[in-house]
Amino acid sequence: MLGSTHGTFTTDLRARVVACGEERGVVVHGVAAVPGDVDVSGRDLYAAVPDLDRFFRPESVAVVGASDAEGRPNTGITRQLLAWAERVGARVHPVHPRRESVFGIPCAASVAALPETVDLAVLLVADPLPLVAELAEAKVRFAVAFASGFAETGAEGAAAQERLAEAVKGSGVRLLGPNTNLNAFEEFREDLDGPAVALITQSGHQGRPVFTLQELGVRLSHWAPTGNEADLETADFISYFATRPEVGAIACYVEGLKDGRSFLLAADRAARAGVPVVAVKVGRTETGARTAASHTGKLTGADQVVDAAMRQYGVIRVDGLDELQDTAALLARAHRPVADGVVVYSISGGTGAHFADLATAAGLSLPTLGAAKQDELHQWIPDYLNVANPVDNGGHPVGDWRGRKIIDAILADPDVGVLICPITGPFPPMSDKLAQDLVDAAETTDKLVCVVWGSPVGTEDAYRRTLLGSSRVATFRTFANCITAVRAHLGHHRFTAAYRSPFDEAPRTPSPSFRKAQALMRPGHRLSEHAAKQLLRAYGIRVPREQLVTSAAAAVRAAGLVGYPVVMKASGTQLAHKTELGLVKVGLTSASQVRDAYRDLTDIARYEGVDLDGILVCQMVAKGVEMVVGVTRDALFGPTVTVGLGGVLVEVLNDTAVRVPPFGEAQARDMLAELRGRALLDGVRGAPPADVDALVEVVLRVQRMALELDGELSELDINPLMVLPRGQGAVALDALAVCR
Amino acid sequence: MLGSTHGTFTTDLRARVVACGEERGVVVHGVAAVPGDVDVSGRDLYAAVPDLDRFFRPESVAVVGASDAEGRPNTGITRQLLAWAERVGARVHPVHPRRESVFGIPCAASVAALPETVDLAVLLVADPLPLVAELAEAKVRFAVAFASGFAETGAEGAAAQERLAEAVKGSGVRLLGPNTNLNAFEEFREDLDGPAVALITQSGHQGRPVFTLQELGVRLSHWAPTGNEADLETADFISYFATRPEVGAIACYVEGLKDGRSFLLAADRAARAGVPVVAVKVGRTETGARTAASHTGKLTGADQVVDAAMRQYGVIRVDGLDELQDTAALLARAHRPVADGVVVYSISGGTGAHFADLATAAGLSLPTLGAAKQDELHQWIPDYLNVANPVDNGGHPVGDWRGRKIIDAILADPDVGVLICPITGPFPPMSDKLAQDLVDAAETTDKLVCVVWGSPVGTEDAYRRTLLGSSRVATFRTFANCITAVRAHLGHHRFTAAYRSPFDEAPRTPSPSFRKAQALMRPGHRLSEHAAKQLLRAYGIRVPREQLVTSAAAAVRAAGLVGYPVVMKASGTQLAHKTELGLVKVGLTSASQVRDAYRDLTDIARYEGVDLDGILVCQMVAKGVEMVVGVTRDALFGPTVTVGLGGVLVEVLNDTAVRVPPFGEAQARDMLAELRGRALLDGVRGAPPADVDALVEVVLRVQRMALELDGELSELDINPLMVLPRGQGAVALDALAVCR
Repeated sequence: MLGSTHGTFTTDLRARVVACGEERGVVVHGVAAVPGDVDVSGRDLYAAVPDLDRFFRPESVAVVGASDAEGRPNTGITRQLLAWAERVGARVHPVHPRRESVFGIPCAASVAALPETVDLAVLLVADPLPLVAELAEAKVRFAVAFASGFAETGAEGAAAQERLAEAVKGSGVRLLGPNTNLNAFEEFREDLDGPAVALITQSGHQGRPVFTLQELGVRLSHWAPTGNEADLETADFISYFATRPEVGAIACYVEGLKDGRSFLLAADRAARAGVPVVAVKVGRTETGARTAASHTGKLTGADQVVDAAMRQYGVIRVDGLDELQDTAALLARAHRPVADGVVVYSISGGTGAHFADLATAAGLSLPTLGAAKQDELHQWIPDYLNVANPVDNGGHPVGDWRGRKIIDAILADPDVGVLICPITGPFPPMSDKLAQDLVDAAETTDKLVCVVWGSPVGTEDAYRRTLLGSSRVATFRTFANCITAVRAHLGHHRFTAAYRSPFDEAPRTPSPSFRKAQALMRPGHRLSEHAAKQLLRAYGIRVPREQLVTSAAAAVRAAGLVGYPVVMKASGTQLAHKTELGLVKVGLTSASQVRDAYRDLTDIARYEGVDLDGILVCQMVAKGVEMVVGVTRDALFGPTVTVGLGGVLVEVLNDTAVRVPPFGEAQARDMLAELRGRALLDGVRGAPPADVDALVEVVLRVQRMALELDGELSELDINPLMVLPRGQGAVALDALAVCR
Repeated sequence: MLGSTHGTFTTDLRARVVACGEERGVVVHGVAAVPGDVDVSGRDLYAAVPDLDRFFRPESVAVVGASDAEGRPNTGITRQLLAWAERVGARVHPVHPRRESVFGIPCAASVAALPETVDLAVLLVADPLPLVAELAEAKVRFAVAFASGFAETGAEGAAAQERLAEAVKGSGVRLLGPNTNLNAFEEFREDLDGPAVALITQSGHQGRPVFTLQELGVRLSHWAPTGNEADLETADFISYFATRPEVGAIACYVEGLKDGRSFLLAADRAARAGVPVVAVKVGRTETGARTAASHTGKLTGADQVVDAAMRQYGVIRVDGLDELQDTAALLARAHRPVADGVVVYSISGGTGAHFADLATAAGLSLPTLGAAKQDELHQWIPDYLNVANPVDNGGHPVGDWRGRKIIDAILADPDVGVLICPITGPFPPMSDKLAQDLVDAAETTDKLVCVVWGSPVGTEDAYRRTLLGSSRVATFRTFANCITAVRAHLGHHRFTAAYRSPFDEAPRTPSPSFRKAQALMRPGHRLSEHAAKQLLRAYGIRVPREQLVTSAAAAVRAAGLVGYPVVMKASGTQLAHKTELGLVKVGLTSASQVRDAYRDLTDIARYEGVDLDGILVCQMVAKGVEMVVGVTRDALFGPTVTVGLGGVLVEVLNDTAVRVPPFGEAQARDMLAELRGRALLDGVRGAPPADVDALVEVVLRVQRMALELDGELSELDINPLMVLPRGQGAVALDALAVCR
């Protein structure tokens, strides 16, 4: 019935799969989407990458509302822009209807009166809307709107922002803002080389620490302060930065996303290009989500869904701005994959033990060094010290020629990709030399050389000059941030090496199931259990043999056809908590039991005042592992697919995993791996392993339903899905479906 | 039967409960233990607090093995000691058999030849053991042994350490080390005042960052580098520091504990005195535990048990040295309780939203400010900005007189105990003034004023001079550490306010149950299910009515006595996995079913080759919530009590909580609150709430067993304990007991 469809992927699309060549070293497979391509739910499969070269490096800039009057906020901004323009050699044209000149530069009376076609207009006016047509007419490519008072202030502001967005759309002008600032035109250090961090923030203050990293020697190439995102949004900048050769990593501070799909498409571009995206995303809690919404007026999305969506595309989510800095800096600078093995090297056994404890707890792998390598290290390190990993040198060897030998020997081990040296106490006779040796050794290798400078002071020369002076050593201030960044680095390269874009293989046309399913939908209504199960059947999901009956005699006949023993359940569109109400009878083995059950069920329903459309007589299914699989609509991402442990567990532990379509089989399997109770599927207490393949197949078929019925289905809940022993499949014992 | 005993507490002890008066503001109730008092398991209820005044501030010091020969390690140490002695005005006497003088100071040829009775002898010799008698003879009160090569090197070293410990015991000399150093005699800043941090570390390198806090203006009063702890141990220093008026908080870096009970007694002292103990404890993972053991040769203990033990006594466990520093510093300096309400105040809505999100996720409470307070704030902050909490001032008000007004207004709110101001981007025109206003305002209040200086640079004046120059403002570098420290502060004061020492109420004499229980023990053997249940009965824990029978006819008679329906189970001392083997039959309702079951069970047992001591015919117990309650022996702490969710859940999720005896009813209830699946006890899917009181009573009775039978019982496992609906009790359906 659903033979031509396998999970998300229609066979005709599979046949068209092609290798699209290499993009930054990552082979991309699948069907290349072109502008206008959409999936079966009507969502974009393609988003253009805006060419922002002239936004970030404009040759000519108009400042609309420029001022040199003392004490006016616009004066400070004008001054800042002029200083910037002088540094980068851009031409600035003040625009003001009533000024002759600003800071001695002649003013144009209007945008139309500008002496040249400018790349960028900075709008320092309270209402940018009336300017849009003029900017378009003058063929201005980019505008930045400072004004606040839009979506961040409530419904009225949101409407004004909507009008602004409408005016910009199709005008040829790309707008940054409103409610933004000049962060894109700050003073960037030009003397640093190597891959850079590109920064995207929805708050200038929140971006400042990452920007300030330049003072510690970390190169920053761009800063996009996106503000309210009436037009250009975080996704546009991610897509653009992923194409820039100088960008080694993208760091984001995100309060809310403008559009779920455009974010995913951008993250997909970055994943294909192998460019890591590290993001702080506010909204772990209700408080955070609410406050963030009031700040830039955007949806934060259900956090579990945002979290899953980010993981699906390899976006590295962190909590603190310090983690954002440290992780982005490491990923930008050390952009080659390395072996997973981490060696911890310290002048103190205590430090090594402590670091190893935290690193192992975080999932890093600390291989025991081989006997030959340990012997080699013991040439320079006293025999009584542990060099298996962590390597404890006891301190003294650091002070002389042995120090460098030890580091080189560790780095030469092919199983070792990462050397971490925590220096918790600065002791210049040792730590200065150690720092220099690490810096020198790092010059000779592509492996990661990480140092934790544990002194809370941070003014020491070994830290400021030696370590921060090196772009090859990654220097951290805490164990935790070093571990987070190294884990992100290893995870990023593992992820991109295995990455296949789900968009290339997303279904574009409805499956044969779709028409059958449509006939079952009842817009605005909840389907009865029987109808919901027919919907599942339409998508090839197994349900018990069952019949809906409206008399005791029919029930007995149905039981004969279904086969004893049977389960009988009251059926109705408004029924919930059937078990609690006593509206389910299991294990009925004879006609008389069926007749009695029919009478009991209809009596209870009458007594409880429940409307029935009949009684379901169902095949009784063997015992397996009870799971739930469902579809929920997310405000940001649309339909999402959830899988979880069923029965009491789902209520008590909420042990569920979620994914945003489209996703493939590997992600469906990852969902199961995320469940805390996943061991239940392997079989516990003598139970046989469950048919995980069948469960995965159900998840993928449910995804297909979610996409194809996106316009018609608002919620689906299979609870329980009985997953039988391996090879025996999975059966949906009950289902709830709500039509839009 | 167990009428005079209620949980841990015998009524005769209860009658003796007295209020012991005030100790540092905390009222202490209970029976004051005196030296030699032990609980019913024979464990100490009292440990003396060593008087370490003369250890930390010796007036005269002997340096045994002093040297001034160039290039010898002892020369550096001697030089360091002399410099220290000069600073603090202590007299130093070098001791060396073959030297006339060291650095111009006359040498004594031996300890016996010292010119005065010294407070402290620093032993720079390879083997300190032969010196102990001589030190005792000379009435030296304290010795520090530097030598390594003891328990940290393996069995031989451990034996040598044991000999050293034995020699010291009762000698009158208290020994620090071996395998330690001079950290106790470093240069402490004398110019800082207010409550100080006292530091205890098992690794000098690991203690260095906390010591270095002095450079940031945090006062440090002591540093105890405990090394291998042959005599003086971490616990001794905790107890001593808890008595010192200058100590505001104790910071510990612990790799392993010498003795579980002495640690608990010390933590109890600190809790009674209201002195917070903050600790890094290595051993989250196997790797960490193993490496730590090889470093100082001590047990790390099962981490879940260590974690629980620390929480029982309010010890604040943190993971990173940076957290240790920040948390200890805050707790030392801000030692008064404050209201729980936290206000986040920022010059950026983004920063406020982000901080609020993380703070709320970590469990801090951010109350919405009242309408009047918001109106007050809006006098100085534009109306369109959110001042409900977080308070966003938009930036500008910070620059003028309004800045201080806003801070004062927030601090004046009685619901607010903590003001946190994250300054992520230093912008001198604003942040310098803001920092100064916060410092000034902090001088006027006992509430917590916290700043996060988010710049990664950390050389800015506002940070180095203004903020670090204040001992009233707590300055952090990351959101996370600020949140951790504030949470620890609020938690510490909540904990000490409610603290009752369990030692005062620990059982000292066996209950009447003990003799009955003893008669059931079979040393070195596992008890049969039937015997294990009799053991439970002896302690007043309900078990099903049951009889052990050895014939089908007896089984039928037993069923009649027990009452139908019955459960029948094979019984034997070596039986496990009865259910999987088919050795349990439930729901038997007639004599013929009982006869059949008897035959089936004995057949299966024969077929499986299982030795039976009979068949149990048991009352069938109504359905409830299946739990497990058990006793396990921990290498460090002795018997521990575990409670968890039963059935498949305990295997799949290991959802258990553990406590180290002695503990009272409140802790037993806390155990249940820790379970992830605790909602099961409240009743889900229409199930009635479970009899939690009965469950708590079982936990306390099991604790009593664990203590009284400490010498005889090595393991107990009630699985399942069926907790019936509220008011109906709890029944142990199966039990396993292993005798020592």
